[in-house]
This record gives sequence, C-alpha cells and structure tokens, in this order.
Amino acid sequence: MAVIGTAGAEVLIPLAAVIGIAFAVFQWYAVAKVPVPSHDGEDGGGAAQKGRSGHDESAEDGVDYRQVEARCAEIQHAISIGATSFLFTEYRYLAVFMAGFAVVIFMFLGSAQRFSTRPEPCTYDPARMCRPALANAAFSMIAFLLGALTSVMSGYLGMRVATFANARTALEARRGVGRAFVVAFRSGAAMGFLLASSALFVLYVAINLFGVYYGDDWGGLYESITGYGLGGSSMALFGRVGGGIYTKAADVGADLVGKVERNIPEDDPRNPEVIADNVGDNVGDIAGMGSDLFGSYAESSCAALFVASISSFGTEHNFAAMMYPLLISAMGIVVCLATTVVATDLAEVKTVEEIGPALKRQILISTVLMTVGIAIVSFLVLPHSFTLFDFGRRKLVKNWYLFICVSAGLWAGLVIGYVTEYFTSNACRPVQAVANSCRTGAATNVIFGLAVGYKSVIVPIFAIATAIYASFRLAAMYGIALAALGMLSTIATGLSIDAYGPISDNAGGIAEMSGMPHVVRERTDALDAAGNTTAAIGKGFAIGSAALVSLALFGAYVSRAGVAAVDVLSPRVFAGLLAGAMLPYWFSAMTMRSVGSAALAMVEEVRRQFDSIPGLMEGTAKPDYATCVKISTDASLKKMLAPGALVMLSPLVAGTLFGTETLAGLLAGALVSGVQVAISASNSGGAWDNAKKYIEAGASAEARALGPKGSDAHKAAVIGDTIGDPLKDTSGPSLNILIKLMAVEALVFAPFFAAHGGLIFKHL
Amino acid sequence: MAVIGTAGAEVLIPLAAVIGIAFAVFQWYAVAKVPVPSHDGEDGGGAAQKGRSGHDESAEDGVDYRQVEARCAEIQHAISIGATSFLFTEYRYLAVFMAGFAVVIFMFLGSAQRFSTRPEPCTYDPARMCRPALANAAFSMIAFLLGALTSVMSGYLGMRVATFANARTALEARRGVGRAFVVAFRSGAAMGFLLASSALFVLYVAINLFGVYYGDDWGGLYESITGYGLGGSSMALFGRVGGGIYTKAADVGADLVGKVERNIPEDDPRNPEVIADNVGDNVGDIAGMGSDLFGSYAESSCAALFVASISSFGTEHNFAAMMYPLLISAMGIVVCLATTVVATDLAEVKTVEEIGPALKRQILISTVLMTVGIAIVSFLVLPHSFTLFDFGRRKLVKNWYLFICVSAGLWAGLVIGYVTEYFTSNACRPVQAVANSCRTGAATNVIFGLAVGYKSVIVPIFAIATAIYASFRLAAMYGIALAALGMLSTIATGLSIDAYGPISDNAGGIAEMSGMPHVVRERTDALDAAGNTTAAIGKGFAIGSAALVSLALFGAYVSRAGVAAVDVLSPRVFAGLLAGAMLPYWFSAMTMRSVGSAALAMVEEVRRQFDSIPGLMEGTAKPDYATCVKISTDASLKKMLAPGALVMLSPLVAGTLFGTETLAGLLAGALVSGVQVAISASNSGGAWDNAKKYIEAGASAEARALGPKGSDAHKAAVIGDTIGDPLKDTSGPSLNILIKLMAVEALVFAPFFAAHGGLIFKHL
Repeated sequence: MAVIGTAGAEVLIPLAAVIGIAFAVFQWYAVAKVPVPSHDGEDGGGAAQKGRSGHDESAEDGVDYRQVEARCAEIQHAISIGATSFLFTEYRYLAVFMAGFAVVIFMFLGSAQRFSTRPEPCTYDPARMCRPALANAAFSMIAFLLGALTSVMSGYLGMRVATFANARTALEARRGVGRAFVVAFRSGAAMGFLLASSALFVLYVAINLFGVYYGDDWGGLYESITGYGLGGSSMALFGRVGGGIYTKAADVGADLVGKVERNIPEDDPRNPEVIADNVGDNVGDIAGMGSDLFGSYAESSCAALFVASISSFGTEHNFAAMMYPLLISAMGIVVCLATTVVATDLAEVKTVEEIGPALKRQILISTVLMTVGIAIVSFLVLPHSFTLFDFGRRKLVKNWYLFICVSAGLWAGLVIGYVTEYFTSNACRPVQAVANSCRTGAATNVIFGLAVGYKSVIVPIFAIATAIYASFRLAAMYGIALAALGMLSTIATGLSIDAYGPISDNAGGIAEMSGMPHVVRERTDALDAAGNTTAAIGKGFAIGSAALVSLALFGAYVSRAGVAAVDVLSPRVFAGLLAGAMLPYWFSAMTMRSVGSAALAMVEEVRRQFDSIPGLMEGTAKPDYATCVKISTDASLKKMLAPGALVMLSPLVAGTLFGTETLAGLLAGALVSGVQVAISASNSGGAWDNAKKYIEAGASAEARALGPKGSDAHKAAVIGDTIGDPLKDTSGPSLNILIKLMAVEALVFAPFFAAHGGLIFKHL
Repeated sequence: MAVIGTAGAEVLIPLAAVIGIAFAVFQWYAVAKVPVPSHDGEDGGGAAQKGRSGHDESAEDGVDYRQVEARCAEIQHAISIGATSFLFTEYRYLAVFMAGFAVVIFMFLGSAQRFSTRPEPCTYDPARMCRPALANAAFSMIAFLLGALTSVMSGYLGMRVATFANARTALEARRGVGRAFVVAFRSGAAMGFLLASSALFVLYVAINLFGVYYGDDWGGLYESITGYGLGGSSMALFGRVGGGIYTKAADVGADLVGKVERNIPEDDPRNPEVIADNVGDNVGDIAGMGSDLFGSYAESSCAALFVASISSFGTEHNFAAMMYPLLISAMGIVVCLATTVVATDLAEVKTVEEIGPALKRQILISTVLMTVGIAIVSFLVLPHSFTLFDFGRRKLVKNWYLFICVSAGLWAGLVIGYVTEYFTSNACRPVQAVANSCRTGAATNVIFGLAVGYKSVIVPIFAIATAIYASFRLAAMYGIALAALGMLSTIATGLSIDAYGPISDNAGGIAEMSGMPHVVRERTDALDAAGNTTAAIGKGFAIGSAALVSLALFGAYVSRAGVAAVDVLSPRVFAGLLAGAMLPYWFSAMTMRSVGSAALAMVEEVRRQFDSIPGLMEGTAKPDYATCVKISTDASLKKMLAPGALVMLSPLVAGTLFGTETLAGLLAGALVSGVQVAISASNSGGAWDNAKKYIEAGASAEARALGPKGSDAHKAAVIGDTIGDPLKDTSGPSLNILIKLMAVEALVFAPFFAAHGGLIFKHL
C-alpha cells in the first residue's frame, strides 16, 4: 500500500492551495509597500517622504519628483480604468456566449440518451449501473460554467495585480535595476501563485461537491468534470484573441505612426494611443495569458483525472491514487514557492546583465526541485503497480513509470524553454543575425526572421515527440496527460516570469510618459528585453503543454466516443486530418487580418490627431486618448467573434455531420499543424522584437554599427517588430488554445457524437 | 469485355506521345519564324527586312531598330549561355549524387533478401514464384536513373525553349500585345507538350523493355518502375531548390539595391545582376518547374500502375486495363492540343485586358474537354467491373467509379486554379486590399499578405479533401492515384501557361535592357502580370497534385511495407506524425536562409560595383555581370545540398532506425502540414508581387492614389514583393517535391524497411 492515503490527499491538496494563495497575498503586500500617491494628485500617507529618501541615485538631474510621482499615479489609474472597463465589456459579451453554450452542452449531452432520467449501464463496465446521461449533462454544464468563471477571475486578478505593479516598478527603477526587478518579479509571482493555487482549489472543491451526488460512479463524475477544462479554455480563447487584437492594434498603430513616421520614442505621451497600448499589455499579455495557462492546467488535470477514473484507480476506488495529478500540482506550488524565494531574497540581481540569467535560473531550479518532488509524490501516493486500460488492452504499470512520465513532460518543457531563449534572446546568435540582416533593409530582416521562427520549431518538436513516445509507451494516454501536467507543474514560476514581462513593459511606458530621467527608462528597457525572451519562453511552455494536453484529451475522446482506431488510411480520417491541419491557417488569417485592419483604423486616427490637434507634436496639447481606446475596444470585441466561432464550431460541425472518425482526424491534424505554426509565429515575433532592441541598446560594436535609433537599419528592424506583433501576441498564442479547446470540446460532446454523429454519412 | 484491347493500348499510347512531340516541334517552328539576328551582331537572313516591315506601330519614336535588335540578340545569347552553363554545372554535381544514390538503392533493396539470386514467393500471391529481390534492386536502380535523366532532359529542353523565345516575345511586343502573347504562349506550349509527351513515351518504353525480363511477374515489374518516379522527383528537388535559390538570390538582390536604393527601374542594364536575374528565371521557374511537374506526373503514373498491378488488372493480366493511367495521359495530350489551338489560332487576344481571361479560359476548356476524354477512355478500356485489393479486403469496383475518381482530381484542380487566381490576381479584391494596406507601410502590407496566403488555403484544402474522400471511397488507393493523374492529365496546358509567365518576364527584361520604347515594356509588363497569376495557378496545381500523389504513394508504401494500420494513437505513429509536420518548417528555414544570405552577398557586390565603377549609374560604363552570375551559381550549388539531404535522408533514417510505422506517421505529417505551408507561401508571394504590379500599373483610381513608382506605398509594396520571392519561388514550390519525394522514396525502399527497419526499437 502507498504511504499517503485518502485522508492525506484530502488534507494536502487544499493545504498546498491555501499556502499558495497566502504566498501570493504576501507578495502583493510586499509590492504594495512601494508608495504611489493616490491618483487624484494628493500624496498618499508616507509616499512623498519615502519617495524623497529613495531616489538618491538620480536626485541631481533636476526632475521634480513630486510631479513625476503624481503623473505616475495618474497614468496607472488611466491604464487600470481602461483595462477594467475593457475586461468588463468583454466579459459581458462572453457571459451571453457562455450562457448560450452552456445550454448547447446541456441539450447535446442530454439528448445523447433522449433526456432519460433513469440510471443506465456504465460506459466502461456495463455490468454496473451509473448515473443517467441527463445528470452528466447538467453537471458538465455546471463544471463548464465553473471553469469559465475561474478563468475570468484568473484573467481579471492578473490584470489587477499587473496594473497595481507597473507604476511601482517604474518608481523603484529610480533606485536601481535590482529593486525594480524584485518589484516586477514579486508582482508576477503574486499573479502566478494566485492562479495556480485557486485553479487547484476550485477543481478540488468541485470534485468533492460533485462526488456528493455521484457517489461511487467515478466514471460519470470525472466525465462531467472535463466541462471545467472546456469552460476554462473557451474563456481563454476569447481572452487571448480579444486581448491579442486589442493590444496589437494599438501597438502596431503606435509603431507605424509614432516610431516610423513621426520619429518620436516608444510610449511618448504625445502619441494618442499610448494609453491604449499600455492597456493592451494588461488585457492581452496578462489577462489573456492568465486565462490561457489556467485553461491548460485545468484541461491537463481533467484529462488525467478522466483517464485515471477508467484505470484500476477508478475501478478500485483508490482516492489517493486518483488524486495523484492534483497532488503533483500541489507539490508544484510548494516547489515554486521555494524557487521564488531564491529570486526575491537569496540571489539578488544587481546589474542589467544579471536579469536574463536570473530568470533562466528560475526555470532550472524549479525543474530540478520539481523532479525530486515528483519522485516523492509518486512513491508516497501510488501503489507499487496497477492496471491501465489502453483501448481495450490491459496494461500493467509500475509507480516509477508515472514518475518518468511526469518528469518527461517537465524536462521537455525545460528544453523548449531553453531553445526558445536561444532563438529569441538578443544575447544569442540567431537574433543578432536577424538584426544584422537589417543592413539590407526590411525585406531581408523579414526573410531571416521567418527562417529563425521556422528553425526554432525543430528541437521543441523533437522534445515533445520524445516525451510523447516515452510516456505513451509507459502509461498510454494517462502517461501523456501526466507529461502535460508535468510540464505545467511549475506553472506558478512560469506565470511569474511570464507576467513579469508585460509588467516591465508597462513600467517602461509609465517611466517615459511621466517624464522620468533617461537612466530610468534604460533600466526598464533592460527589464523589458529580458521580459520579451521570458514571454517567448512562456509561450513555448504554453504551446508544448497544449500539444501534450490535446493529445491526452484526444485519446480520452477516442476512448469515450468508441472509435476503434484512428487509421490515417481511412478516407474519413484522412480528410479530417487534412482539413484539421488547415484550421490553424484559417484561424491565423482571421486574426492577422483583424489586427491589420484595426491597426489601419488606428493609424488613420493617430494621423488625424497629429494633423488636426495644434500643439500636439510640441507637447503643449493633450491627445485624445479615449478615441484610440475605443477603436481598440470595438475592433477586438467585434473581431474576436469569427475566429472564436471557428474554433468552437469546427468540432461540433465535424462531429455532428461527419462523425467521430472525421473529428478524430480533424483533431490530430489541427494538433500537429497548429503546434508548428504557433511555435514559429511566436519565435519569429520574439526574434524581431529583440533584434530591434539589440540595435537600440547598442551593446556591441556590431549593434552600434547598425544603430542608432532612426537609422535605416533600425527602421527596418521596427518594420520586422511590427510584423511580429500580431504573430507573436495574437495568432501564435491563440493557436495553442485552438488545439486544446477543440480536443476538450470533442471529449465533452463525445457521448452525443457517439450516439448521433455523422449525419451526412448516415443519410448518404 | 472492353472495346480497346492490348493491341489498341500498345498503339494509342505511343501514338499520342509522338503526336504531342510533333505538335511541340510545330510550335517551336512557329516561334522560330520571328527573326532575331544572330548574336554576333550580323543580322540573320530575313531578320532585318521582316523587322523593318513589322514594327510599324512604334516606328515613329526615333529608336534605332537595328541596334535594338542586335542588343536583343546579344542579351538573349548572354542569358542562354548563363543558363546553360549553370545547368551543366548543376547537372555535373547531380550526376555524382545520382550515381551514389543509385548504389544506395541497389545495396538497400538487394540486401532486403541478402542479395539472393533465387526466385522467391510473390509478395501478394505467395503461391506463385516471382523474380528475385536482386533483380528488383537492379531494375529499380535503372528506372531511377532513367527518371533522373528524363527529368534533367525536361528541365534542360524547357530552358532552351524559353531562352529561345524570350527575345522573340520582346520583339513581337513591338507589333502589339496579341502578337507577343501568341509567341510567349506558343513557346510555353512547345515546352509543355515536349515534356508531357516525352515523359509518357519514356515511361511506356521502359515498361515494355522491363517487361521482356519480368514476363508475367507484374508485381515486380511495376515495383521496379516506381524507381522512375523517385529519379524524376529527386532531380526535381535539386532543380527546384538550386534554381530557386539562384533566381531569388539574384532577384532579391536586384530589388534591394536597384529599385529601393538606387531608384532605377526593374531590369535596367546598369544593374550588375540583371543578367543573373534573367538567367534565374530560366533555371528556376522554367527548368525547375519542368522537372517538378515531370516528377509529379511520373510519380502519379507509377503510383497508379503499382496499385493497379495488385488489383485484378494485374492478377488477370489485363494489359489494356493496366495501361488505363497511361491512356488517360495520352488522352490528355490530345485534349490539350485542341485546347492550345483555341488560344493560338481561334480566339485571338487583342488587348491587355484579354490576357488573363484567355489564360483562365485555357484551364476551363481543357478541363471540360478532358472530362469527356476521361469518360471515353474509361468506358472503352476498362472492364465493366473488377476487384481491387484494399489492405487485405476485396473491393468490387465499377468502371464509372474510376471515371469519377479521375474527374474528381481534374475538377479539384480547376477549383484550386480558380481560387489561386482569385487570391493572386490584381483584378480581384484580396490583392487590391494588400496593395491598399501599403498606405500605412511595409509592415501592414506584410501582415495582410500573410493573411491572404493563409486564407487562400481554405478552399483548396476542402477541394483536395473532397476529391480524396470521394476517390478513396470509390476505389481506395487506386482512386487516389487516379485523382492525382486526373489533376495532371491536362499537364501540357498547365505547363504551357506556367512557362508562359517566366518567358514574358524575361521578354520584359530584354525589352528594358535593349532600350525598346516604353510602350513595349508596358505590353510585356501586362503579359507578365498575367504570368504571375498563372505561375501561382501552376503552383496550386503542382501542390494539389503532389498532395494526391503523395497520398497514393503513401498508401502503396503502407501496403508494400506490410503495415497493418497507421493508427494515430500508436506512439510510434504519432511521434512520426508530429515530426513529419515539422519537416516543411525545417526545410523552409534552410531555403529561406539560403536565399537571404545569398541575397546579402549579392547586395554587397552590387553596392560595391555602383560605388567603385565610375560612370555605371550614368550608363557610360558596363557593370560586371559575370561576378553576380558567379555569386548566384555558387550560392545555389552550395546551399541546395543541405535541404536536399534533409528530404532524401529523412525517410531513410526514419525507416531504418524507427521502422515502418514511424515512417508512415512521418509521411502523413509531412503531407498534411506541407500542403498548407506550400499553398500559403506561394499565394502570399503571388499576392505581394501583384499588389506591387497593381500599384505600378495604376489602372484604377485607388491604384493611382497609391502610386506612382517610387512613392512610399510603392516602396512598401516592393518590400512585400521581395519577401514573397523566396516564399513563392524557393520554399513554397519545393515543398510539394518534399512531400512527394519522401513518399516515393519510402515506397521504393519499402522492401528493405519491412525486412530490416526499426533498428532502435529492435535493440531497445
């Protein structure tokens, strides 16, 4: 027998979640100690005093700090208001959608057994009786709404933390880069731990509450629970797409007119859309990403739980072993907590050069510690060996197999992270080559950047393929689900360094807008350049884990829908495979176009303001920020619908009209093609962004030969950066949601497709 | 019994091939009637006289026509010399490679049965005895060399025709756009018919000669014949990649310095690489494409023949029915002949506006006529019903099933062609929107262009998926092979309009360089703009047919290698699928980078010449064309090796180390992912190119608002065009060879993999 029993699991999981939440609150409190005057102009309590004693380093440059601080507060307030109002508008739209889709779930799943309220034979053990399909429909719907709500909460809280932290980071940057780093990092950690812990907590509570009704029908219980993943991911999809369009419409527009035409610096307050741009960072990169990673986490947990429920864990009702996936996540919170303390307290960052390595070290430390953590959990919780059901075959699995599965995912994540860093960091050769190609103009820059993105796909794919092969061989689909969970087990650290990026970016914007001295801006720029790379790493994790999660969900779907084999050489499967591989392109075409046309509208507006508002260029008149915010808001709300509908409807249409086999092909095609498009788009974008920053920073002789700002090479680099914006922040990161969401949706609707799918072929 | 028996087939196939060759010679002869003085300056016989009487339209513009004609001849000679010398150098490299690979084929296939010379039980009918594996190894090797040789010949002859025709087109353009169109089109037809007919002829002869040894062992015979497809495609790969790098290094370099920096027109003789650029059109777009489509044709024929040989055609030794695929191709030659006469003689093109529709009409006419042709062949040649072997199952197939299969491919091709035209023609909305986005600079242009490329994937994929589903359902893998053949059945017309493009492009170059009046250049530009679209259509056909061909070859491979089912949910298959989907990205990364770095070298050289040769800008000194030619030559020969090796080695490595299942996954992944990348890359490139031409032509108020040449919007358009160059002419069109070649290679080596594959798993 295993060491930790049911009681242990019942205690340890909520305990870890509560510790995580407490840690997040502690980080928030630490950030809050940096004083920002209240936005209405009056100084808060000790703010002025602290501020005066703090900015000794650059006190001699004749800047009026009272005024700067007041402006900081004012800008922070404007960003916060803008982000909150956008999110609320977005959530209002989404509430309608979610309510509608909840009804769809209920109707489809309920109709699978004609809304019968009688118990029926269990799917995987027809000798026993299970809860009626109608109950599963109702509970799936509830789980869906719960997932959606938690996802919304994740995005919203992340945004609050970020807008709370950005001005504080800028203010701390006056006192040195190390101080600013700690504030930005702590804020990221606050968000990371809040998300990871509350996601675990809500899922845990839901399982226990649902269990009250389901009793010993674990198949039905965990089937319904998958609705949680669907809810989380569908909100994430709209969050990513809507937020992505918002932020990039503003960003592209800002770059095109501000940097290229008017030759004013980034985040210059004269640029009418500078507020929209900063709001965008918070709603796209923070709220969108928060929802996204929450979705991945929820889905991989659900996939693992669902598969576990049909293994001997489920049939023998070994609750502690069933909870193995959640215990891994609980251990992850503890490990990440220890890792975070290293960055915030033990190993101080003192110079600009130390930022990148410090963030990289975080990933390495958490991975090493987590490997130990996985071993502990695996050997304490799992029985020595047990049986899995692998598509009808029984498979004997040992506990150390699962240790390897989880670790395979974890280390594959590390490989992906490091490769992404190599291809997108301006300290490495690929970005420098891209920067160097700017010598001959924007065209070669784009050609080289695309090539870098394509090339960056190779190693991650081999890493994912290896993890898949190993965990598949050892523990079939359960192994894949665990590998996904392993990659996400250090999600709290991943989110910390991921959120750190946009917070630093915003801090830079606030420093520029509030008129802080140049040296402060240089520090925030250095924070931001490291943040670009960590953002790319975060996207790498998100995509890698999405690939694993989708495969696990796909396997669960195939099993639940009763598809015997997904044979590529069946015409239905192959047609699905081909069409599925096309979906990422269709989706990208929509999102790219949306960003492009919203940016065009933005450019027209900004040009209009520069032309028609007298004194704007000279800084004597204020631009009309609100109109730009409105353009971004309207564009993103209007244009997130079509790509969202494409993703949400494709599995429904394929399953209902063409049946379970075609849908299986569709999922596999979208998965294998989407991963490539997503990785290459993210990394091309990251490389272009940092190539530009490399030229601007001028840290080497080669870089200085290309610069300075405003040179032909720099202009070419800005064009590349602008092209990369929608690729890396709209299309790319939405694609991982596309592949996950389609898979989880297929799984949730599997009972319906199995009963009534393939209408066209039935009537042909 | 069918109406046409063995004797009929034996007569009709070579007859059609001979008629096709005669027609090609006739077209060549018609083109040759346009006089060009011999290049050493002396006028040819009636040239001066004819020339004088001919150029009445623009005689009053004070241009010295004797001098212009002499310059034309001189330039044509320089291009022809450059292209010939490049191709010979390339072929010398390839001869070494081919010899080496021929040995590899012999050793691998021979070793499958330990070089035994004893007859052995037949693969598909173990009761009978078949020829030894060693014989198959030897004949596969011979077929491989034959295919390679025919491919080389196709490329070389195409190049000769094109360089023969370009100056003649330019000279005829003085006499009106209709005259020039006919010359360019006839030249394209000469190439198209020469290729289609000789490919058919060689294949037919090879089958009959091999048959002398094989006798009634049809399985062995057609298994060996697949080497023909492998030879054709491997030469095509290097031809496309090498030629693609050559032409785009020159083109990108020319655009970057000439148009953007120095503000001199395209093809201006002062630009040092103008000759290299024009040579590139002939070695890349003409020779490369010729080899490519020959490869597709050879492979789809081989796939169909191989599958047919294991159907009841093969077991019952129904020679006429076995020859059904070749009879379809023979009918295609006749149909295309009739179609060509419409363009050259019946419906004259008089104005610029009529060019595009005339080319489009060619595709439509050939498709409609061919549908009738397919019906005739199907009902005359095939038995009323027969048996196919569909992975162990027997399947009863009626003759009209096959009619539908071939037609499905044919009409899917038409859909792809028309959709491609919509997305890449400057008469349609998408290109105009791309052009319009140039208002806000290069970045939005690139974003919109990428989106157009992505979007253009949707309908072709549905068309291909539908054709696959229908033909798969009706006649399993044989149906797919026939659909591929159907799409390629009008290859003579396809090649005609495809070759027409680069010929017009070259004619424009020659017109500019030889100093012809502006009106002539305008006419050649109009020919060229239509050519850009037809080139995109040609690529669409090439990709669509490649998808079908690969699937057919894939099916044949799975059958030959004895893989029971390609189940996506087997870890080996899925890992292969994921890695396969990555290969197109890896390949594109290499080719894009090659073009980029070759273009960088070219730009440096051109800048050097402009800076160091006094009087170059003023036109008083001659540039050093030879150095630029050398840069392109060296770059392409050196850089075609790595991508070529990637494609050639991947199936060998996967099959040998990881076994037949992983290889099957790899092929499927490369297929479904490669098709998308190829279509989007080709169409993005085509859209950018024509967006630029749209602005330059200024045919509408919108276009004039964006222009003229040299405006900011036009500069942005040039950047897009330059980025599109490697996408549409190097990466994109090579990808279809990647997917075909890997599949045919897997098929050829299948006996070896089945016997000895999967070393790693065997020893783990």
